[in-house]
Amino acid sequence: MRAAIYKGPHSIEVGERPDPVLAAPTDAIVRVVLSCVCGSDLWYWRGESPHAVGSIGHEFIGVVDDVGSEARTVARGDLVIAPFKYCDGTCPHCRAGVSSQCVVGGAFGDGRIDGGQGEAVRVPLAGSTLVRVPGSGHSADTMRSFLALSDVMCTGHHAAVSAGVREGSVVAVVGDGAVGLCGVLASRRLGASRIIALSRNPARQKLAAEFGATDILVERGEAAVSAVLEITNGIGVDAALECVGTGQSVATALAITRPGSMAGMVGVPHGVDGSIADTIVFRNVGLRGGVAPARTYIPELLDDVLEGRINPGRVFDFETDLDHIAEAYRAMDERIAIKSLIRVAA
Amino acid sequence: MRAAIYKGPHSIEVGERPDPVLAAPTDAIVRVVLSCVCGSDLWYWRGESPHAVGSIGHEFIGVVDDVGSEARTVARGDLVIAPFKYCDGTCPHCRAGVSSQCVVGGAFGDGRIDGGQGEAVRVPLAGSTLVRVPGSGHSADTMRSFLALSDVMCTGHHAAVSAGVREGSVVAVVGDGAVGLCGVLASRRLGASRIIALSRNPARQKLAAEFGATDILVERGEAAVSAVLEITNGIGVDAALECVGTGQSVATALAITRPGSMAGMVGVPHGVDGSIADTIVFRNVGLRGGVAPARTYIPELLDDVLEGRINPGRVFDFETDLDHIAEAYRAMDERIAIKSLIRVAA
Repeated sequence: MRAAIYKGPHSIEVGERPDPVLAAPTDAIVRVVLSCVCGSDLWYWRGESPHAVGSIGHEFIGVVDDVGSEARTVARGDLVIAPFKYCDGTCPHCRAGVSSQCVVGGAFGDGRIDGGQGEAVRVPLAGSTLVRVPGSGHSADTMRSFLALSDVMCTGHHAAVSAGVREGSVVAVVGDGAVGLCGVLASRRLGASRIIALSRNPARQKLAAEFGATDILVERGEAAVSAVLEITNGIGVDAALECVGTGQSVATALAITRPGSMAGMVGVPHGVDGSIADTIVFRNVGLRGGVAPARTYIPELLDDVLEGRINPGRVFDFETDLDHIAEAYRAMDERIAIKSLIRVAA
Repeated sequence: MRAAIYKGPHSIEVGERPDPVLAAPTDAIVRVVLSCVCGSDLWYWRGESPHAVGSIGHEFIGVVDDVGSEARTVARGDLVIAPFKYCDGTCPHCRAGVSSQCVVGGAFGDGRIDGGQGEAVRVPLAGSTLVRVPGSGHSADTMRSFLALSDVMCTGHHAAVSAGVREGSVVAVVGDGAVGLCGVLASRRLGASRIIALSRNPARQKLAAEFGATDILVERGEAAVSAVLEITNGIGVDAALECVGTGQSVATALAITRPGSMAGMVGVPHGVDGSIADTIVFRNVGLRGGVAPARTYIPELLDDVLEGRINPGRVFDFETDLDHIAEAYRAMDERIAIKSLIRVAA
């Protein structure tokens, strides 16, 4: 089959990889329909985080092509959403709802396990990993929203859940990437009454407003902290979503969180320093988050997509095919695109 | 009046300070009966944190000697517990239960405001700060437990609350100082079913067991992480209490917290580095805590002291008078004492 192959920084090429076959009775083979590029893939693209040579990409939806005898929840021909990490659904962490920490789980596209950026994927633990999409004949827009549930929307939702967003919350979202924008959407979905989005990019500001942002602030760093405190009467927000991962963005999120509240962090940390512990203690705030348990969240979010209540697929504003995947990376790296979608099959 | 005066590292002497008088109608004057030394005072004693020259000590109970016209909840002759920070009870943070972050509040014994380590204290915002103790003729042991509510028991409780301890929780407490021991007691009070105390000091191990610890581990650092994971089937604890504040103790607390759970941090951070952000994200745990809102917690804990259900005063294992306050510091600094009590008045 044809698949993207990570060869090193700024070098992702489409080449041949072995056709996936069932290796265990719990496996399924999925033919990928749509895939996309994650913000975290850019760290590998830029050489800022290591990545093994080989398969890459962990977000995809597709059609089940073959099923092992023990993967009983899916059948050949099913349209399925793959959460970006596979899991057994029965370990203590899965049972506690933290499927992303499954003790026997793992990630797609890690160089060894097939990646979503390719024609097909052998999905381990398929019965407890894949989520079957009911119905048929879904629109192109709806298909894009299904794809968003593979990672980005679940990750924005995890930021909101980790930050404790609830009915009536005043929320601030640090980061206007696809995750931050999904954090805005997730906050609105959870009932936030005010959502402050930090963004200075007109296209992202526009989508943030469509997703439910009530206030847009262009400031960054210390100026952003001052601006948020000013419009919250010096109190800070009930919940801050940290959707970047840099030292500055984490510091900003903690500084605008009101005492007794939480910042939900889903950015991969880069350059964060120990001063966050001082902020936590002296402001009486919390920092919680991590790798989103997408498998846990997909069913409830899928219901909302199917009912048309949320449309997270709107984050995809660049589209290409597998042959042009390097362009998909470049568009995101250069911030031309919020998030790049890859059409793999018709 | 006579009071302890901080003059610099390893130099705390008893000298004369002005007799406190009412300066605002919201003030009260409290004649101190019992005071004590806080673990955080040791940072000043050691010169590891700065402290202004002047008044020191923020934990005390005493008898109201004079009351301003607007301090309506207390009266002359009342036995009162002073939370270690004063607060107005009406600002947004107080109303949210985070009285320690009161926008017009402050701390006792900061060099300027009278300290608890002295004969008398002018208490600002006395009506919303002091908690009146009902009844009279309380035993010496009960008086010591009242004193413990001024800070140390509330701080241990804040660690437990911040970590989300609830009925049936498996808890680990990092730190066997007075705060950690109170964290054990608070965890038992909140219904924890298993409490793992990390301690290698026989006297502290004994008190931890009396307070409700079900397991005592002598390991530290990486070995402690392994030991906790081993006795929790590799899962980690439902809640970790961080009661030290060093880089190692915070790292340990985060490493033993099971995914989806929280570490409650009340240690003042010293030498914590940015790797905690990686642990939070890659283990899917949270870190929350801070300066305990003692004024918020005292009423419920006081009920339990009065009913004999908790006896946090057991942490005081060294006792002296105001004249010998330097010995009280030295005993804690040299870890001869868990916590030093100062008898100020009969």
